[in-house]
Amino acid sequence: METLEIRSTVTSGGQLVLTLDAVPLPALEADQILVRIEAAPVNPSDLGLLLGPADVDTIAAADGRVTATIPAARMPMMAARLDQAMPVGNEGAGVVIDAGTGARAMIGKTVALVGCSTYATHRIVRAHEAWVLPEGATPAQGASVFVNPLTALAMVETLRKEGHSALVHTAAASNLGQMLNRICIADGVPLVNIVRSAAQAAILRGIGAKHIVDSSAPDFAEALAAAVAETGATLAFDAVGGGPLANQILRAMEAAAQARMPAYSRYGSSTWKQVYIYGALDTGPTQLDRSYGLAWGVSGFLLTPFLMKAGAETIQRLRARVAAELNTTFASHYSAEISLREALDPDVIRAYARRATGEKYLINPAKG
Amino acid sequence: METLEIRSTVTSGGQLVLTLDAVPLPALEADQILVRIEAAPVNPSDLGLLLGPADVDTIAAADGRVTATIPAARMPMMAARLDQAMPVGNEGAGVVIDAGTGARAMIGKTVALVGCSTYATHRIVRAHEAWVLPEGATPAQGASVFVNPLTALAMVETLRKEGHSALVHTAAASNLGQMLNRICIADGVPLVNIVRSAAQAAILRGIGAKHIVDSSAPDFAEALAAAVAETGATLAFDAVGGGPLANQILRAMEAAAQARMPAYSRYGSSTWKQVYIYGALDTGPTQLDRSYGLAWGVSGFLLTPFLMKAGAETIQRLRARVAAELNTTFASHYSAEISLREALDPDVIRAYARRATGEKYLINPAKG
Repeated sequence: METLEIRSTVTSGGQLVLTLDAVPLPALEADQILVRIEAAPVNPSDLGLLLGPADVDTIAAADGRVTATIPAARMPMMAARLDQAMPVGNEGAGVVIDAGTGARAMIGKTVALVGCSTYATHRIVRAHEAWVLPEGATPAQGASVFVNPLTALAMVETLRKEGHSALVHTAAASNLGQMLNRICIADGVPLVNIVRSAAQAAILRGIGAKHIVDSSAPDFAEALAAAVAETGATLAFDAVGGGPLANQILRAMEAAAQARMPAYSRYGSSTWKQVYIYGALDTGPTQLDRSYGLAWGVSGFLLTPFLMKAGAETIQRLRARVAAELNTTFASHYSAEISLREALDPDVIRAYARRATGEKYLINPAKG
Repeated sequence: METLEIRSTVTSGGQLVLTLDAVPLPALEADQILVRIEAAPVNPSDLGLLLGPADVDTIAAADGRVTATIPAARMPMMAARLDQAMPVGNEGAGVVIDAGTGARAMIGKTVALVGCSTYATHRIVRAHEAWVLPEGATPAQGASVFVNPLTALAMVETLRKEGHSALVHTAAASNLGQMLNRICIADGVPLVNIVRSAAQAAILRGIGAKHIVDSSAPDFAEALAAAVAETGATLAFDAVGGGPLANQILRAMEAAAQARMPAYSRYGSSTWKQVYIYGALDTGPTQLDRSYGLAWGVSGFLLTPFLMKAGAETIQRLRARVAAELNTTFASHYSAEISLREALDPDVIRAYARRATGEKYLINPAKG
């Protein structure tokens, strides 16, 4: 028995190499299950490992391998993964087709997996590591139950834990952004959605979003300031990362806070303003002009450490909500279903590497 | 009875106006004291209110007023202080020359004051708000007992509270930086000092600093990386603010953390790296290239909210240490003592506005 899996290598020569490798599978241990993967999303968080900082314009395919050039300036950050063929895929779902002696009851179940390199036809995991999906759920419905749903829920958890009352979200028309809108509407949390086009604004209006600000509009700064003032948002989650956006959000928050102040302070407002950067749609530098006093923070945000800190009880509560609302709040939409081979087609790679809102790829390794 | 005090006004016409105003003093209430101010430092934190974002090249004096132009782009941030003549001076010290019926025992004492606009010949405060200096201490010795000593101590408190084991400090040859070195040496906390010249490095070597990195040296990046790796510093306090420095510190911390990791992670290290910006020696934007994973934070830092959060017991402990080590750990050095009138001389203003390390001005309002 073997599995076919996508592997990504960064060579010490400065090349990215993607291959589809056949890898033998060991015999199952008593508590292990064998899953036939049928659905694995291409998340932005997968692209970092899959493509690294490769220049997508140089992607080429030959002799069953895909290659691309990595700019020399980005190579120092690759030191720790040089010349290792790394399997890829943060999450996915499939059907249990075999099991060790202690886990036979799992056979036939549809399960979701996380952290086990799902861009593969088959995976072996411990039975307790798989999440048995609700009766009737398909692998495609369960492919994205971890990263986006838990990240969206983590944002609202963070808001409560840190004492904010309203939230700003960027790249807000993404699958994750739509989930976040449904959560915030249900929970009564005011949410300012920053999108990059009128079409994205229309998507969010369609699902009931109230505060939508289009960064491509000429009055963006004023509209953002007005929405932040109206909601009182002092927390933001930013998927864009680079460029002026985080700074613009902090400025809008400070202007709203200063409007609420009775008197001038040379240090700006004492209202704490926090931006968490969790993505890099813009890989350029984040530019902070610090024109918002000294009560501000900009930090990276990653789901796994958040969950580790939150603890087992919180994780259990969040997962129960995802299971209960799998086909409503946490429904994902994919624009294309592709095979493992198609996932290594240079044109397809360039398409999903664009990270365009509304274009989301689902890999189905069971597809021929 | 009246006081002469420096006042700073930002006019709606875009001008900074500095004046020396005579202001009548009210009668003392029972718990109030009248202090003749004899020493008040010109801290970087005073310049924000005193000069605002005025262009120092345009400073001129005429008819007993100093004026300067404020660039139009900076005026929106001034909205809350427009056309108000604001008294200035965060801290200082002097002698109690009169007191209300309930505070007569204070007469003759030398006291330090904070938060009461000390660029003035006289100030009235509540007796409990003044800090009676140790026997024999002069106003000059007690002029800077709040801002620098408590900020330096707050850095080490933060290190302990947030679980870091070593510290990076920028503009490290400043009065505050020298205090921080003496604290860290006494407390056994490894400290990486970033300075901007060989002369500043020599100052720190002279007081026993071990890790000194000169940002003007050609091998700065390598030397910083080596010092951060050797100390294991994951926390920095940065007085510079703008430019590439915070980013360079985070990169050095991440390189050291990755060198300690057993395996590659696409998200970078899980070691939390924190930079607190508490000054603005470079008023340009902070540029973050985010090449250090997602476990990082950059935040503003201000002493007062830190102390409010730390609580009365901590404040008491820190103040007791300052009092006990006033002429050793927390000794300040001034390069010039100036009168209130000299503090409004255009050439003198340009000199202290440079915020040059080793040049520190002390205002003595009792000086004719």
